[in-house]
Amino acid sequence: MATRISPLSGFPELLPSQRAVEREVIASLSRTFELHGFANIETRVVEPLDRLAKGGEIDKEIYVLRRLQAEDAGDDTGLGLHFDLTVPFARYVLEHAGHLEFPFRRFQVQPAWRGERPQEGRYRQFTQADVDIVGRDVLPFHHDVEVMGVMVAALAALPLPPVSFQFNNRKLIQGFYRGLGIADVTEAIRVIDKLDKLPAEEVATQLVERVGATPEQAQRCLDLATIRVPDTSFVERVRALGVEDELLDEGLAELAAVVEGCAAGAHGGVSVEANLRIARGLDYYTGTVVEIFMSGYERLKSVGGGGRYDALASDGRTTYPGVGVSFGVSRTLVPLIADGVLSGSRPVPSAVLVALTDEDARPASESVARSLRARGIPCEVAPAPQKFGKQIRFAERRGIPYVWFLPVAGGEGHEVKDIRSGDQVAADPDTWSPPAEDLRPTIVTTEEQQ
Amino acid sequence: MATRISPLSGFPELLPSQRAVEREVIASLSRTFELHGFANIETRVVEPLDRLAKGGEIDKEIYVLRRLQAEDAGDDTGLGLHFDLTVPFARYVLEHAGHLEFPFRRFQVQPAWRGERPQEGRYRQFTQADVDIVGRDVLPFHHDVEVMGVMVAALAALPLPPVSFQFNNRKLIQGFYRGLGIADVTEAIRVIDKLDKLPAEEVATQLVERVGATPEQAQRCLDLATIRVPDTSFVERVRALGVEDELLDEGLAELAAVVEGCAAGAHGGVSVEANLRIARGLDYYTGTVVEIFMSGYERLKSVGGGGRYDALASDGRTTYPGVGVSFGVSRTLVPLIADGVLSGSRPVPSAVLVALTDEDARPASESVARSLRARGIPCEVAPAPQKFGKQIRFAERRGIPYVWFLPVAGGEGHEVKDIRSGDQVAADPDTWSPPAEDLRPTIVTTEEQQ
Repeated sequence: MATRISPLSGFPELLPSQRAVEREVIASLSRTFELHGFANIETRVVEPLDRLAKGGEIDKEIYVLRRLQAEDAGDDTGLGLHFDLTVPFARYVLEHAGHLEFPFRRFQVQPAWRGERPQEGRYRQFTQADVDIVGRDVLPFHHDVEVMGVMVAALAALPLPPVSFQFNNRKLIQGFYRGLGIADVTEAIRVIDKLDKLPAEEVATQLVERVGATPEQAQRCLDLATIRVPDTSFVERVRALGVEDELLDEGLAELAAVVEGCAAGAHGGVSVEANLRIARGLDYYTGTVVEIFMSGYERLKSVGGGGRYDALASDGRTTYPGVGVSFGVSRTLVPLIADGVLSGSRPVPSAVLVALTDEDARPASESVARSLRARGIPCEVAPAPQKFGKQIRFAERRGIPYVWFLPVAGGEGHEVKDIRSGDQVAADPDTWSPPAEDLRPTIVTTEEQQ
Repeated sequence: MATRISPLSGFPELLPSQRAVEREVIASLSRTFELHGFANIETRVVEPLDRLAKGGEIDKEIYVLRRLQAEDAGDDTGLGLHFDLTVPFARYVLEHAGHLEFPFRRFQVQPAWRGERPQEGRYRQFTQADVDIVGRDVLPFHHDVEVMGVMVAALAALPLPPVSFQFNNRKLIQGFYRGLGIADVTEAIRVIDKLDKLPAEEVATQLVERVGATPEQAQRCLDLATIRVPDTSFVERVRALGVEDELLDEGLAELAAVVEGCAAGAHGGVSVEANLRIARGLDYYTGTVVEIFMSGYERLKSVGGGGRYDALASDGRTTYPGVGVSFGVSRTLVPLIADGVLSGSRPVPSAVLVALTDEDARPASESVARSLRARGIPCEVAPAPQKFGKQIRFAERRGIPYVWFLPVAGGEGHEVKDIRSGDQVAADPDTWSPPAEDLRPTIVTTEEQQ
C-alpha cells in the first residue's frame, strides 16, 4: 500500500470537475441520438482474437487477456480487448440478428483499447461515441444523410471549438479514376493520401511511377483532390474535369445530397464541406466517407470519422450494410480539458451545503437536506460543526454556490447565502430553489491560453 | 466474417430493450447519489499487477494484459483488469489526493472483470455501482450512517423485488469475543461464517476444537450470531448475554445508529435489519459491515455489500479511512431480466414514427420530426413509403406507441394515431406531446413466472 503512485502513460484519468465535463458531453450526445430514435447498446469489452486480428496494422496494438495464474498456454483465454466499437457492433448484429428489427439504429458510448505509443489525442484507453444504422440485405442511401445529420446535430449541441465535417464519397473517387483510365484505384488513393505530407509535384511523380498514370492523368487526380467547397458547387467543378463514368455520377449525386442535408442542420460552430481528398484508409468503406476536424486542434488529425460500408457484417447467407460515424470523446476532451478550454463549474454535484450548528443538530440539518432533495436539489450537510466561516470556506473549496443556515435558538428563520455574492436571504426548505444554472455542474468554456 | 457466432459464457450482453432497463437503473442510482452530493468518477480499467495481486484467493481470477504481437516476456504490460472498484478507487485517491477535497464523496458505475467460473449472478464482466466517503487521517462515524442511508434511498427508488440491508459491526463482534475471552477472533469469525452450511452443533464443535473455546463460550457465540432483528432491540439481547467490553459498547452504539438511521429512510421494498451473523470475509473492514439480499433471489447470495475500513489507502505518511457500499448491477439485473421480472417497455427511444407518404415527401416528414425533437420528443421517420398499414406494423414491432400522418394533397391536417388504442386525432407538430409515461422507454415489472 505504501508504493509510490505515478500515472500510467496512455491511460488518462479525470479529476471530478473534469469528469463532470465528460459526463455532460456524453449526456448531451446521448440526448441527441435518442431524440433521433437511436437505441443505446453496450457490448462486452472482449472479442475472440480471430474476430479482432485480421493481419492488419492494428493487430500489434491488440491487448490479449490471459489469466494471472494460467498454468500453461492452453489456459490462454483467446480473447482480446476491442480496439474500436465497429468490430463488436458487427458481431453483436450477427449474434442477435434474430432479436433485432432492421434497419437497426443504435448508438454506443464505451471505451476501447489500443497498445499504441501514447501521445496527445492518442490513448491506450479511450472513449468513443458511435452512431450507426444497419440494414438487412439493403440499406437505402437516405440513411447516409440521416446518420451524418445526427452527428452534425450532436456536435452542434456541444460547447466545442469550431468543428468541420469533411465529406467525400468512395464511388466518386473510384468512378473518377476508372473513367480516367487508371487501373489500380486503391494504389492511387494511397498515393493521393500523401498530399498532407508531400508537395503536389512529388505526389504527381509517384502517381506516374507507382500507379502507371500519364502525367496528364496525374494532374487530373490532383485537380480532383484539391476541390474543397462548403456547398454542392463541387459537382460543376468535377464535371469541368471532363471525366465520364456512371459510378462517378452516382457518387456526385450522393455526396451532393449528404452535403446539402448536413449543411441544413449545421449551426453553432459546426460547418460542412465537400473535401475530395478525404478517402479514409480502411478498405471497407463503399460510399459516403467523412472525417471530422476541430479548429485549433488540427494536430489531433480527425476527432471523428466514418462512412458507408456495404458489408458491415455477413454470416455467409445474409449481408448487413451499414452507415455510421464515430466521435472520439477522449481524443477531443482530454486535450481540451488539459488546455483549459473546457472545465467543470464545480467538482461536486451539491448546489447547497447545509450548515451544522452543533453535532446534536445534525438531524435538523439532515431534514432540510431531505426537503431540498425531494425537489431535486443536490445538497450535502457539513461534515463538522465548525465555525460558520470555516463551513463557508468548505463550500467555497468545492465550488458549492449556496450555504443554508438553520434558525438558532431564539433566532430568525432559515436563511440561504449565495457565497459568491455574499447575499443572504430568508428561505423556506420546502419552496426555495437555486436558479436553474446553479442546479448542476456545468461546462465552462474559456479561450485557450497560449 | 462467415464464422458462426455463439455467446461467450460469463459475458452477458443485453438486447436493446433490456439495455433500456439497465440504463434507467443506472440513471436512477446516479440521480440519488448526486442528490446526496456524491461526485462521479471513472478510473482506467487497468492497474499494475502488484496493486491487484495480493496473494489472496482472487489472484487467480485476474485477467492480465499482454500485447498480441509481444516479442518476448519483456513486452508483458504488467497490467491487469480491475476485479472490483475499490482497489482502483483507493489508488485514485492516493494518486490524486493533492487535487481532492476531503471528506471526498464519490460514486462510480463501471464494469469489473473476474475470470471465475460463470454461473447465475456471477459473470466474468459485470457492472457495479459503488458509493464511498473517504477522509484524510480521520472520518467521523456519522458518515457510516450517511453512506448506508444513501444506498438505502438509491435501492428504494428502483423497481426491485424486496431488498434487505443486513447490518453488523466488526467492533461489536470483536469486542464480544474479546470480552468472552476468545483469543483467536479471526478464526472464530471464520467458523461462525459456516452457519449457512453446517448445523449449529457442528459449528459449536468447531469453535471448541479449532478456536479453543469452552462449550459455554461456543454457545454464547452462537447466541450472538443468531440475533436478527429489524430494530435496535438487539442491544438489549446482546447485553443479556452478559459480556462486558469497551469495544463491544462502541460497536453496539454504532450498529444501533446505523440501523436507526437507515430504517428511517427505508421505504418501498427496502427493509433494514441488524443481523449479528454478518461478518464479510475481507480483512480490511473495521466497523460497520453490510450485506444486501434480494427476496426470491437468495441463491445469488448478496446483491451488494460494504462497510467501514480504517485504512482504505495509505501512502506511508497519510492514511485514508473510508466507508462505502457496492451494489451489483449486473448480478441483480441479468437474472431479473432473464426471469422476466424486469423488462423494457420498448427497444427504441422513439415515441413517434412519422409516416412517409412517398419518397419525395421525406423532407416534409423530416420537418415534422424536427418540430417534435425541438420539444424533446424522440422520433424517427419511416424508412420507406410503404402502405400505412405496413408502416403501423413497423412501429408496432418496435413498440413505438404513436404514428404521425401528414396531410395528403387536398386532405385534412396532421393527425397522430395511438396504435395501441387505435385512437387517431388531429395534432399540430408544434404543440402536440405524448403523455409523459410514453416519452421514454420505461421499466416494466411483472411477477416472476415460475
